[in-house]
Amino acid sequence: MTHAQFDPIEFRNALGTFTTGVTIITASGSDKQSVGVTANSFNSVSLDPPLVLWSLAKTAGSLPVFEEAGYFAVHILAADQVDLSNRFASRGIDKFDGLEVETGHGRAPLLQGCSCRMQCKTTYKYEGGDHIIFVGEVLEFDRSDSAPLVFQAGKYALASRKADEKPLLPSQSGDQSEFNEDYLGYLLWRAYFQFHKMTRIQAPIAEHSDTEFLILVTLFHSAGKSSADLTTAMSYDGEHGDINQAINKLRVLELIQARPGNPGLYELTHSGRQKTLSILAAAKSTEAEFLDKLGSWESVALKNLLKQFILETDPGLPHLWESQAGVGAG
Amino acid sequence: MTHAQFDPIEFRNALGTFTTGVTIITASGSDKQSVGVTANSFNSVSLDPPLVLWSLAKTAGSLPVFEEAGYFAVHILAADQVDLSNRFASRGIDKFDGLEVETGHGRAPLLQGCSCRMQCKTTYKYEGGDHIIFVGEVLEFDRSDSAPLVFQAGKYALASRKADEKPLLPSQSGDQSEFNEDYLGYLLWRAYFQFHKMTRIQAPIAEHSDTEFLILVTLFHSAGKSSADLTTAMSYDGEHGDINQAINKLRVLELIQARPGNPGLYELTHSGRQKTLSILAAAKSTEAEFLDKLGSWESVALKNLLKQFILETDPGLPHLWESQAGVGAG
Repeated sequence: MTHAQFDPIEFRNALGTFTTGVTIITASGSDKQSVGVTANSFNSVSLDPPLVLWSLAKTAGSLPVFEEAGYFAVHILAADQVDLSNRFASRGIDKFDGLEVETGHGRAPLLQGCSCRMQCKTTYKYEGGDHIIFVGEVLEFDRSDSAPLVFQAGKYALASRKADEKPLLPSQSGDQSEFNEDYLGYLLWRAYFQFHKMTRIQAPIAEHSDTEFLILVTLFHSAGKSSADLTTAMSYDGEHGDINQAINKLRVLELIQARPGNPGLYELTHSGRQKTLSILAAAKSTEAEFLDKLGSWESVALKNLLKQFILETDPGLPHLWESQAGVGAG
Repeated sequence: MTHAQFDPIEFRNALGTFTTGVTIITASGSDKQSVGVTANSFNSVSLDPPLVLWSLAKTAGSLPVFEEAGYFAVHILAADQVDLSNRFASRGIDKFDGLEVETGHGRAPLLQGCSCRMQCKTTYKYEGGDHIIFVGEVLEFDRSDSAPLVFQAGKYALASRKADEKPLLPSQSGDQSEFNEDYLGYLLWRAYFQFHKMTRIQAPIAEHSDTEFLILVTLFHSAGKSSADLTTAMSYDGEHGDINQAINKLRVLELIQARPGNPGLYELTHSGRQKTLSILAAAKSTEAEFLDKLGSWESVALKNLLKQFILETDPGLPHLWESQAGVGAG
């Protein structure tokens, strides 16, 4: 029998367009040797009886143990388990070293922190070319609310549900929508604006300008900053109002002070630290309300994408911004 | 043989933590009857020979055709093919009605616009509980660059690759990072800021304030707006500078004019329309540069998530914003 001869890279790229989760499948042999492999070839088969399947390369060193064990445990990995995925995709290391492991049906090792675990009894082993297809009946499962890890086009990824098709602007101002609805600048601004406004009206934050807010937060996390330090730190991500004016106001309010013995550096006073703590708490609590509305899996994905966007499009140099004439953001 | 009795909803929820793509599998019987089903039970099995598998319910009306045909075509759906997915998941309709269809190996109907298509010859049919597992050898495939559709937790979704673990701020201002790196307000602002600055320095945009820019774009997409209309439209997504001042400046520049016969309404002049076209072109071209850096699949996912965020957290009422004292965005 002759088979189609494909460019292996092209064929892998084609297969990679089918998105999958990432699993680790474990088992334990009669000599109590534990094995585990990272696999994305998992899928559900049947609801009644509850069957799932996955495929293992015939060349895998763990094949004899999986064949003999008669049981396996499927771990559907969570978004923060990339390291675990890489570990079980490696060869020549003790994959279980240092891991907290429970023992499941058929002594299969159970890993922690996954989105879902399924303990299975092997029902069928099928021929599948250079792989063996294992079909197992699910005996027991448990799951968490952690966002699952995703694999797409050969890379780790996160998934987020598709947005509704409804327009962002009410119909009476819908004239703008042709340009706005799909324009990234509008989407970024509108998302920022909605978030920012709700944060700004929280009691401890509303008393301060954005510049004062940023100075307080910066000093909260640092041992002492000069006026020039503050200007540099804040120039990285925006133009701000007169920083010296904001510093003076915060000094009058006795929230910051020149450091004793080093008057060029500013630090929070005791009441400034208390005030900043309440500001951070209000900011975090407003953030939590927004993320709750969006949903926890989508929140992980949104932060991930924004971070990626920032890194990929970072011009890298604060002075690039500084060289521009001040332009309001609104 | 007794099987584990699970709550079916709980078991489906557990299976749903494993993310998948979405496929439509098609075939054609000897009477040329075409069948097609939406399935997410697809997966790759073997590279040499190139094998893939999927599962079909034993109760499916299309089962006899798939069994007889001996060939099937797998369509890995693109992000914009939700309607097609829903159509092939329905019963009692002519699924192929109105679709442009090519004919593949074994007369299997080939659909258009997918992320990837694989034409397969059935190699094995395996018992799988309430499903039959079809294993097929891939004879031919083709793929596009369209972002694939994803299915997770029972909902359509999009995937985006995980960001690098590096920090967003250079080390010298890393003091802020504890608060910033995972704070949504910072991520939204920084992403907006990077985008906005690069857009603002483009030649035709740099000559105008943000308020003027928005007035020009709004009038470009509308038949005529009063000063009050413009104020209302723009109050939905931010405070703006003095709108009447911006209107006057644009009138002096002869980019907008009072509409003849209805002086309360403003419209673009001929040169205003030309100018706005060049502004929109510059904005779109800068956007394209950013999206290119991010990657096309991630761009689809980012816009999707921002849109979802905006819809989920929309306070819904422009006057809610208007009632707040003006606070700068920077």
